Amino acid sequence: MTQQTHDVIGVGAAIVDIIARVDDGVLDEQGLSKGAMTLVDEAGSSAIYGALGDALERSGGSGANTIAALGALGRKVAFIGKRRDDEFGKIFAHDIRATGAAFDAPAATTGEATARCLVMVTPDAERTMATYLGVSGDLGPDDIDTETIAGAGILYLEGYLWDKPAAKDAFRRASEIAHQAGRKVALSLSDAFCVDRHRDSFREIVANDIDILFANESELLSLYETEDFDDAIEAVAKDVAIAAVTRGPDGAVIVSGDERIAVPAQDVATLVDTTGAGDLFAAGFLNGMATGQPLATCGAMGCSAANVVIQILGARCPDALKAKFAIEGWT
Amino acid sequence: MTQQTHDVIGVGAAIVDIIARVDDGVLDEQGLSKGAMTLVDEAGSSAIYGALGDALERSGGSGANTIAALGALGRKVAFIGKRRDDEFGKIFAHDIRATGAAFDAPAATTGEATARCLVMVTPDAERTMATYLGVSGDLGPDDIDTETIAGAGILYLEGYLWDKPAAKDAFRRASEIAHQAGRKVALSLSDAFCVDRHRDSFREIVANDIDILFANESELLSLYETEDFDDAIEAVAKDVAIAAVTRGPDGAVIVSGDERIAVPAQDVATLVDTTGAGDLFAAGFLNGMATGQPLATCGAMGCSAANVVIQILGARCPDALKAKFAIEGWT
Repeated sequence: MTQQTHDVIGVGAAIVDIIARVDDGVLDEQGLSKGAMTLVDEAGSSAIYGALGDALERSGGSGANTIAALGALGRKVAFIGKRRDDEFGKIFAHDIRATGAAFDAPAATTGEATARCLVMVTPDAERTMATYLGVSGDLGPDDIDTETIAGAGILYLEGYLWDKPAAKDAFRRASEIAHQAGRKVALSLSDAFCVDRHRDSFREIVANDIDILFANESELLSLYETEDFDDAIEAVAKDVAIAAVTRGPDGAVIVSGDERIAVPAQDVATLVDTTGAGDLFAAGFLNGMATGQPLATCGAMGCSAANVVIQILGARCPDALKAKFAIEGWT
Repeated sequence: MTQQTHDVIGVGAAIVDIIARVDDGVLDEQGLSKGAMTLVDEAGSSAIYGALGDALERSGGSGANTIAALGALGRKVAFIGKRRDDEFGKIFAHDIRATGAAFDAPAATTGEATARCLVMVTPDAERTMATYLGVSGDLGPDDIDTETIAGAGILYLEGYLWDKPAAKDAFRRASEIAHQAGRKVALSLSDAFCVDRHRDSFREIVANDIDILFANESELLSLYETEDFDDAIEAVAKDVAIAAVTRGPDGAVIVSGDERIAVPAQDVATLVDTTGAGDLFAAGFLNGMATGQPLATCGAMGCSAANVVIQILGARCPDALKAKFAIEGWT
């Protein structure tokens, strides 16, 4: 077995978020489904951006947020995702490397621009996203570095890239390498509409290739085409060794074989922006797995990390996260 | 006299801020003077950026921050500053236009990149800046739009651009146009080191061309080469019709002829980042002038606007500013 060089390696989209507060009316005008991620092209992204007010830019990307948070918590991490040699590409690379993550592939010198996600935060702190995937959607099997994947204890895949066939092939390739090296493979379902678009292939990979599944309630219900949460839980328990299902203010349920562990959400002083809640839950949970904690502690770490990120704007909060885990006594 | 089309027009640098929290040691390692603005070239900017942790990007530029805030407060404003046709240029243009400001010149298609300012915030909430002026330093007399300048009640000039001879010529040209149209000309001294580098020409323009001067205490002392605050106040009273001198937690002193109006600073719940304090003071003060308030109210509006911006990260806070002025009963 290859020596373990990293605790977790993520594969996903390299994205910079453009974050703006909006009223609900803007979502209607732009034809966006509240709370969801809508894919747009460059022209569509520019058009929506033009309708937004004052914004700020901050590195994002669902899988990248998880890896950046794990890096901040002291885990050895790496990330694979495609960016261009443009300003947004430089910002993305700078911020993920600043957390200690290995991010070694050179920037693409051709192709579309670096991905950007318009994150629109409504007064209720819910986020609605319009993503221009750009060059990040060109991720393919050739971008999967065998040695790094084989050397990482857990491979973490971001469901959002499921809309891109080549990326799906990259995920399959990465999963093969990881399993051949005796590693665990984790997947985040990312978005209920994304699950709906690709239910069959998600079902197939979840049943055959995934050891640890992250999903929120609506994603899980969509995956198993049921409206009954308990039925969905029973179904996922048969498919994967471990499932961590988040339920917003109701916390999370960790499922493993016959075990069902309910983890409460932590109190929120000021709910600012739910962007990154799922990403940070996954980071906290994987931090527990990587440090050999029991499942209940992994779940508590997930809820604690999610609690931090929903009290800031955007999905990156390395300093606040480190401080929170220190207070919890987890360092 | 030309009809007034705008309340205030700003001329300055079109900059995007890259904001990171740092420990004081980073400033020493990078040879940066705490609290000051150091000019760097593109390579220097990249080297310092590489030494910083997780960052976020937000539109900035001292004069532009003032204009953006005035726009948020409902004043009719315009801005003149040079940016390239790159991502940072798009971000700058988007955010200033989102406040309602006219920003009409097309992006430059040649020359250096859009300006960026590395804003390093230390644990004491003080900000230290390393600015790569890029194409914004190429501002020259040809960029000064006669009609727009002549149609603005107040012309507001940003001292930071004093390091660039062509920009100085642009300022002189803009001042001439404004005065010929019977308008007021305001200048912000921006930085004590900048004043020190260009004392003679600052003294000359302040004495001959400026009606309203904005300075903090150290800039004013540097301008008049004195260590005695009262001496500096007497000197500035002879040079300009109105001077607004900020003193950090001690508020501000408004000077006009024989009048000396002390305005207290407002209480701060959580001091986050002093970036933009001077810019927002100027915005509040000019908001008062543009709406015909007495000097004491102009000063109070300045202190109130500064109070808002030092409780957020970065220098743009349109929503919080609007809310604060509504609470003060100033809308």
